[in-house]
Amino acid sequence: MVQRLTLRTASTAAALLLTATAAMAQVPEAAEAAEAVEAAVSTALPADGQFVMNTLLFLMGGFLVMWMAAGFAMLEAGMVRSKNVSMQCLKNICLYSIAGLAYWAIGYNLMYNGVDGGFFGVPGPVDIPDPATDSGEYAVASDWFFQMVFCATTASIVSGTIAERMKLGSFLVFVVILTGILYPITGAWQWGEGWLYEMGFSDFAGSTLVHSVGGWAALTGALIVGARKGKYSEDGRVNALPGSSMPLATLGTFILWLGWFGFNGGSQLAMGTIEDAASVAKIFMNTNLAAAGGVMAAVILCQIIYKKVDLTIALNGALAGLVSITAEPLAPSAGLSIAIGAVGGAIVVFAVPLLDKLKIDDVVGAIPVHLLAGIWGTMIVPLSNGDASYGVQLVGIVSIGAFTVVASGIVWLIIKAVIGLRVSDEEETLGLDKVEVGVEAYPEFSTGAGRI
Amino acid sequence: MVQRLTLRTASTAAALLLTATAAMAQVPEAAEAAEAVEAAVSTALPADGQFVMNTLLFLMGGFLVMWMAAGFAMLEAGMVRSKNVSMQCLKNICLYSIAGLAYWAIGYNLMYNGVDGGFFGVPGPVDIPDPATDSGEYAVASDWFFQMVFCATTASIVSGTIAERMKLGSFLVFVVILTGILYPITGAWQWGEGWLYEMGFSDFAGSTLVHSVGGWAALTGALIVGARKGKYSEDGRVNALPGSSMPLATLGTFILWLGWFGFNGGSQLAMGTIEDAASVAKIFMNTNLAAAGGVMAAVILCQIIYKKVDLTIALNGALAGLVSITAEPLAPSAGLSIAIGAVGGAIVVFAVPLLDKLKIDDVVGAIPVHLLAGIWGTMIVPLSNGDASYGVQLVGIVSIGAFTVVASGIVWLIIKAVIGLRVSDEEETLGLDKVEVGVEAYPEFSTGAGRI
Amino acid sequence: MVQRLTLRTASTAAALLLTATAAMAQVPEAAEAAEAVEAAVSTALPADGQFVMNTLLFLMGGFLVMWMAAGFAMLEAGMVRSKNVSMQCLKNICLYSIAGLAYWAIGYNLMYNGVDGGFFGVPGPVDIPDPATDSGEYAVASDWFFQMVFCATTASIVSGTIAERMKLGSFLVFVVILTGILYPITGAWQWGEGWLYEMGFSDFAGSTLVHSVGGWAALTGALIVGARKGKYSEDGRVNALPGSSMPLATLGTFILWLGWFGFNGGSQLAMGTIEDAASVAKIFMNTNLAAAGGVMAAVILCQIIYKKVDLTIALNGALAGLVSITAEPLAPSAGLSIAIGAVGGAIVVFAVPLLDKLKIDDVVGAIPVHLLAGIWGTMIVPLSNGDASYGVQLVGIVSIGAFTVVASGIVWLIIKAVIGLRVSDEEETLGLDKVEVGVEAYPEFSTGAGRI
Repeated sequence: MVQRLTLRTASTAAALLLTATAAMAQVPEAAEAAEAVEAAVSTALPADGQFVMNTLLFLMGGFLVMWMAAGFAMLEAGMVRSKNVSMQCLKNICLYSIAGLAYWAIGYNLMYNGVDGGFFGVPGPVDIPDPATDSGEYAVASDWFFQMVFCATTASIVSGTIAERMKLGSFLVFVVILTGILYPITGAWQWGEGWLYEMGFSDFAGSTLVHSVGGWAALTGALIVGARKGKYSEDGRVNALPGSSMPLATLGTFILWLGWFGFNGGSQLAMGTIEDAASVAKIFMNTNLAAAGGVMAAVILCQIIYKKVDLTIALNGALAGLVSITAEPLAPSAGLSIAIGAVGGAIVVFAVPLLDKLKIDDVVGAIPVHLLAGIWGTMIVPLSNGDASYGVQLVGIVSIGAFTVVASGIVWLIIKAVIGLRVSDEEETLGLDKVEVGVEAYPEFSTGAGRI
Repeated sequence: MVQRLTLRTASTAAALLLTATAAMAQVPEAAEAAEAVEAAVSTALPADGQFVMNTLLFLMGGFLVMWMAAGFAMLEAGMVRSKNVSMQCLKNICLYSIAGLAYWAIGYNLMYNGVDGGFFGVPGPVDIPDPATDSGEYAVASDWFFQMVFCATTASIVSGTIAERMKLGSFLVFVVILTGILYPITGAWQWGEGWLYEMGFSDFAGSTLVHSVGGWAALTGALIVGARKGKYSEDGRVNALPGSSMPLATLGTFILWLGWFGFNGGSQLAMGTIEDAASVAKIFMNTNLAAAGGVMAAVILCQIIYKKVDLTIALNGALAGLVSITAEPLAPSAGLSIAIGAVGGAIVVFAVPLLDKLKIDDVVGAIPVHLLAGIWGTMIVPLSNGDASYGVQLVGIVSIGAFTVVASGIVWLIIKAVIGLRVSDEEETLGLDKVEVGVEAYPEFSTGAGRI
Repeated sequence: MVQRLTLRTASTAAALLLTATAAMAQVPEAAEAAEAVEAAVSTALPADGQFVMNTLLFLMGGFLVMWMAAGFAMLEAGMVRSKNVSMQCLKNICLYSIAGLAYWAIGYNLMYNGVDGGFFGVPGPVDIPDPATDSGEYAVASDWFFQMVFCATTASIVSGTIAERMKLGSFLVFVVILTGILYPITGAWQWGEGWLYEMGFSDFAGSTLVHSVGGWAALTGALIVGARKGKYSEDGRVNALPGSSMPLATLGTFILWLGWFGFNGGSQLAMGTIEDAASVAKIFMNTNLAAAGGVMAAVILCQIIYKKVDLTIALNGALAGLVSITAEPLAPSAGLSIAIGAVGGAIVVFAVPLLDKLKIDDVVGAIPVHLLAGIWGTMIVPLSNGDASYGVQLVGIVSIGAFTVVASGIVWLIIKAVIGLRVSDEEETLGLDKVEVGVEAYPEFSTGAGRI
């Protein structure tokens, strides 16, 4: 209310002033000036305010996505057996740390520094301007922070799939390469304004650039490291190796859902105008509805097919809904967002048993959730976003997939050859917590070491 | 510092300019203009900036309240026995999803769309304007998001009370009705500017509209579904059925406490002026102090009465303090806020055994916390807020209570008649996780199935 | 883009207007006015907008630091044995409540109200202005909230060290004194602009004022209450008493990491200008990098020295990195931030066994993390901040340490004399949950009571 009055008064003042001036002498420039002043009485936030709001969006979005690192840690800690829980926690805090260091030292500039339609930028440590002289649309450090947590998310996706059998050191070496080099390269193609961006590929917040990249790297790793001992019997039976704590897995999923508001909302990249703020709001709404659609689709399908509702499928349904909407959370209507998320949830229900049939042992279900729903979300963008085309979307998915599979495959194989990927059978039976961490997750309760 | 100088310069400039103009010719309009310009040199945030800040308040408040869904999930997962933990997690992620879908499809418009002093609005899916043409005081989607998470909170309250014996499907059907129809109707009476609003009822952030509504629906459900097997022995003994994880219950409480800053602070509905921002700040402070008062009152009373301090009473003391201040977190002084919260904490200490005496089996204590403290908080509003009257507060509490009890009672009974509310005795003994979810919460440790 | 155009138009309008005016009559004041108007066309956020942004920074920073209370609760719940988990949760929710009450009733004014180069201010309950008349740079209530959560953090640090053997009531009495009197006094010396501030001491967000103060109080408490039964055998052996839940400890660490963005970022105290927003962004980046450096230093040293990577050392490495950068998170370059954090991580690796050698039983490792890394972080400030000097930093560390050790020592000893600090041997063996709380943390699984 107040500001409207104020601005009306300002207009009035300008008009009165110019009328008076014009009345004094019939000078033609006065009329021109009157129009210009009228036009300049703007309700927009001043430039510094926009810098502040954009920076705030990155920082807020960034801390929400940083929190997703905890979400992955809890989801994975809940989905592995108790004998590997400490290791899973350790891998997660290490991968988040490494992502920060590698993305500072190499990754950010490799992704953004002068890509200019090409394949990658000029790597090197990020240079942060003195805050007193920062300029542009937002603080450079806030952009680094926001982009870094996306990079870390990619690594988090991998850690879940290859859990319970991979050595700590081998995994961490892979994380260095993934976050310092592989993720930034395909990131450069699109968000760094490289060749794919110029072709018109559309991936708002990273269904492909983050989730599928993580998913492809995870799939490649799962194929190379092989399934957990006892997961697939020789007689073809699939053995459930149930996770140690469903409430932790649920907590992790809620954390991820919360963090996703930052993930998708922050990807609007600006919040200083009505349009940008309203866009962030619409993204929040669509993101939430897609997740809800994913949950309910997964739950209803589970009930129909299995007559029970597997909690882990419901949780992965939420995540698949979130991944699905990530490629385009702004353009779709609310109803379409629900449908896009619901298909994501359905993908989980059908893909989890399929992977088991293929004997691909994905401990947390990251491949259906991040890779398959990521492909789905990316492919459906043109339905709501007229600037995207199905053909180019396919080019982006295939090219990024091919690069990530080949490049991460080479890295996994080199690590395997040099230091080995997998703990010994005996160590796997004992559990990684005893062997590599030396700290049991639940020393007073655990009976997990006796299980396969 | 900088802005003060700048504005002083602007005033100076305007004054000089007008002085010069006036000096040139003794035109009376110039003097008038001088005053107008002087008045227009405002320190207020421009209109678009206010839109941005209000939208941001809704989004930030909204994600904090969304996080409360995780808080309820953890609180409840910690307070049920291990054989029902997966089910409790599943119910919570489903109810949050359903709330989003139902409040989008029906609820929001039923609550806000043209209530105009009446009993409810015109339902139908929410229409989100194109961000490029959004206008008003905030983004419509941000308001939807903020209101939706309140609606979801109401359902979360119910799930805790009726835990460990109600079928998944039956509960979820109730949630559809509660979040799509029942909550929005009583919400329309007040926040939709219906008849109760016109009468002068005062409920800032929902002690009655959210917490008591959830509490009444929970109470009705508890009465209709009955107590858990073994809770009340035939000889009149009350058996403790202790929760499976106190740290998870504690985590849930801390999450709720955190989320409550969004719940109460966001209910200021605007943050673009000094007064609004200072109001949000005062609300944060009062909210925190009321919770602290609730904890300490509960702890001290526990120590005096029982010579031990039951952690669950302390946790519920915090929540009762929070519910108590929710009806009016802005007007009270800090000292009064502490007192209001402390009474809430005391209510928990005395009401929990009372409910057991009445054989009302409330697994998490939601009825004392959300219903009774909600009534208390609503009734005490006139003490600090001169615009409220005790009589009208009572009318609001009674009318909303009566409606919710009758309407939710009918819904519970219809569900009971059609598909049944309760699992069989045998299934209850086995635990809902085995029977309906198929996934044990703690497969490696759980011995809970052997308990009553 | 938009705002630039707008502002260009405004300049043009002003110029045109004044040119016209000047053209009409050769009045010298018009030219002067032209310059003044040109200067006044500012891109800065108006004063009210700055108030709003600063208040928002305090509220957002505040809720993130409030969330650290949950982080400490989870970290400690995970690090104690299952028989003491409920007590640890209870102590944490109580201490956060007490901090709020004591810092409102006494502490805030003792710390800030007219210290004026002296040793402490005039205590008394905080007076919050009516939001309609609030003024200054930010809302008073938002500042109180932000400072209060810092105060609570200090108490959280103590609770971890003295866990598993101290009585609830004795600990809570200490918390009242610590948060109401001790922390505010040393706080007044620096942040209240007391004698140390005037001398030029530099502690941006509290490596010394918060973390070391908590650490000194914890150390004094640990020395006076003594080690847990069975921790140090008479033959000199150190017995590991492993924590009950590593995922909860990990969750707690991630929560603390997240909260630290509010802790350090909010300590910029303003966010309404480009420089302030860019400073907050740089602080986020440096804070994250220091934590990452702390993790990796701890992990690599652990692997080299012990051939295993102790998860608890990795977690404490993160926290030590965070504490280390807290004294100066703005001035260092990214590379230096990593190095500062890495030294913090190394301190943990070497100090944990050292404390055991000294038979100081610190259950969660708070002394290395908060006290030693806090000293390190404070001492290294002059390397990047030219306004600080090594000599004055040392004066601050020593004076605050001496005061806190002596004052808290006296308080601990008085409590010991009057009501006793420690539960009986038998009660310690049974566990505090059974003896003082009456609620077991994991009633269905726990076997912890049988352990030492």
